[in-house]
Amino acid sequence: MNYFSSDFKLGILGGGQLGKMLLTETRKFDIQTYVLDSSKEAPCQFGATKFFLGSLMDYDTVYQFGKMVDVLTIEIENVNLNALDALETEGLKVYPSPKTLRMIQNKGRQKDFYVENGIPTSAHQRFTGLNDLKQSLEKDELEFPFVWKCAQFGYDGNGVKIVRSTLDLIDLPEVECIAEQMVPFKNELAVIVSRSVSGEIKTYPVVEMEFHPEANQVEYVICPARISEVVAEKAQKVALQVSEAFNHVGLLAVEMFQTENDEILVNEVAPRPHNSGHYSIEASYTSQFEQHIRAILDLPLGNTNSKVAGIMVNLVGAEGFSGPVVYENIEKIMAIEGVTPHIYGKRETRPFRKMGHVTIVNENMTEARKIAEEVKNSIRVISVQ
Amino acid sequence: MNYFSSDFKLGILGGGQLGKMLLTETRKFDIQTYVLDSSKEAPCQFGATKFFLGSLMDYDTVYQFGKMVDVLTIEIENVNLNALDALETEGLKVYPSPKTLRMIQNKGRQKDFYVENGIPTSAHQRFTGLNDLKQSLEKDELEFPFVWKCAQFGYDGNGVKIVRSTLDLIDLPEVECIAEQMVPFKNELAVIVSRSVSGEIKTYPVVEMEFHPEANQVEYVICPARISEVVAEKAQKVALQVSEAFNHVGLLAVEMFQTENDEILVNEVAPRPHNSGHYSIEASYTSQFEQHIRAILDLPLGNTNSKVAGIMVNLVGAEGFSGPVVYENIEKIMAIEGVTPHIYGKRETRPFRKMGHVTIVNENMTEARKIAEEVKNSIRVISVQ
Repeated sequence: MNYFSSDFKLGILGGGQLGKMLLTETRKFDIQTYVLDSSKEAPCQFGATKFFLGSLMDYDTVYQFGKMVDVLTIEIENVNLNALDALETEGLKVYPSPKTLRMIQNKGRQKDFYVENGIPTSAHQRFTGLNDLKQSLEKDELEFPFVWKCAQFGYDGNGVKIVRSTLDLIDLPEVECIAEQMVPFKNELAVIVSRSVSGEIKTYPVVEMEFHPEANQVEYVICPARISEVVAEKAQKVALQVSEAFNHVGLLAVEMFQTENDEILVNEVAPRPHNSGHYSIEASYTSQFEQHIRAILDLPLGNTNSKVAGIMVNLVGAEGFSGPVVYENIEKIMAIEGVTPHIYGKRETRPFRKMGHVTIVNENMTEARKIAEEVKNSIRVISVQ
Repeated sequence: MNYFSSDFKLGILGGGQLGKMLLTETRKFDIQTYVLDSSKEAPCQFGATKFFLGSLMDYDTVYQFGKMVDVLTIEIENVNLNALDALETEGLKVYPSPKTLRMIQNKGRQKDFYVENGIPTSAHQRFTGLNDLKQSLEKDELEFPFVWKCAQFGYDGNGVKIVRSTLDLIDLPEVECIAEQMVPFKNELAVIVSRSVSGEIKTYPVVEMEFHPEANQVEYVICPARISEVVAEKAQKVALQVSEAFNHVGLLAVEMFQTENDEILVNEVAPRPHNSGHYSIEASYTSQFEQHIRAILDLPLGNTNSKVAGIMVNLVGAEGFSGPVVYENIEKIMAIEGVTPHIYGKRETRPFRKMGHVTIVNENMTEARKIAEEVKNSIRVISVQ
């Protein structure tokens, strides 16, 4: 198949920042892209061969879009899966497959899948709704504390809550959900596994994540994770086990907990480029975005090793600011060696909105970590006063 | 000045591959860009905020284009300088300045400039045309052999010829030209100097170039150059001297000869991102394209050091092929670790046309050089049969 400067067309469902960073790679290879998103302000409005406005959840929109392209991928899981089923049945290459996406879209089904496949994960219970969950509590079939997660459409900490008492249930919506056992953990880790159409597999190094306590969004992603080799190997092994179980094509970001006993438990997965792999643009031989393109087009996978240590800091909207965005002190952080801001292209900020990220690379991890903190303490995503 | 996700607009004159690689950086920073090019098939047709069709040599077109933007830059030297003069007089920031461009556009003037500024360069003579040159030969004021160069609009080896006898003069056009003394040299080197509006200066490491004997186009660019530290320091010093003389803003690629006596002679310069800096995308902490944007927007300059050794191989159209391009064996080279093809996005190939480049990065230079040769011997830019 000739992808380069040819008539071949790659379709991307979703036009957010992940799509935008994919477009950097398709432009580099001169691969034609069609992108579908519901917002005309989407970061992918530039850089695609053609940008289409429409709902990712609408059967006809997704189906018609799919009919125009040769390979279809996603940059967000919440898309109309029935349309993808139909397209796949009619012979379109859809990566990740709707089967994989269906398994992942619903967190209850995803957790069941881990149990069925012998993949280590925290204990969980599924509930059709909040009332169902409350009845379980009353019958003592469920105990405080637990982690409540809405089964579908959660994103970046929305749809996740630690429930310690009945009071914490008050604001929760009446939707399908799961309750997960709270597991005390030392570290939150992630491994991105890439798998091509013909089954070539390469894993990225284990990264370590630190979360913002309130927003429940990743604050630092550190590559390589500062963990023992034994734990790193265990995490890689579990990630490969998950990848094998899903039999996915493209990237699979596997988020895991390292428990206090150094057990590895799978938290959740994302079958696409992931926040935990953004560091790879500057630090790795092959960025996760290039790797995703290579995998779904069945090109040879690239080297997943790092050239240097990498740390990623998310740029999220500061609390108390809504409106046209200003990146306060961006010039200050750009003056530090090895610091690269990525601005996603959202004109308006609001509290905790993901607006960009900053990568810090350095030969020395300790130095990188120091700089990352300086970056974090300097830059603020605010709005024009 | 707020450049990020704002109303600020950067104008780029020229929409070729250099512009395209600049757009990767402006997209990363979400800086709005307007691009002008005369071809609707230009690589910059995607990725710019707005793409305009029009002649870069037409006064009105360039002037009107300039009136729409806040800062104006170029990715090709051959643009209407009178329009740039007018725009600059009216207060527009134009980088590089029309003064610098005027000095560089004409190779005779450029050589005179080196002489006036005490910059080492090979001896030269200027001629208003071929007849003028022939008269000098007759009068024994000029001797064979010499290097003939057309004074303006030469590009990538067009407009340069080694003249050993009267026979070599037959095909030369009747245009303003120079004759340069032939200097036996060991190496062709280059240094890219970046200089910001407020005068911050950073130089990239010295690179070494190997030329294709027939096409007179760069075949390998090797960073760092495999030369002694003494020679490297001398080359850096001369490059800085040139940069200082031009007082340019943005990038200045300084091409130099290392003579058999280890003298450094300046060959020519380009006031923009340059083929000799493409390796920087994968090998350097800051790519030359990001650095150009930083410099002309007066942002702090980035680290110009390399993370790993880098070698760049140009992808030029193979002889005997014209038409819709095919990159033969591209999948084979992509299977080698540390190999990244860049496809510029030209649909049609023709002999010696610059269609893309491949970067090879490796911790080990010897290994990188071996792989570069493998790449060079594998990939061919041909056309559909």
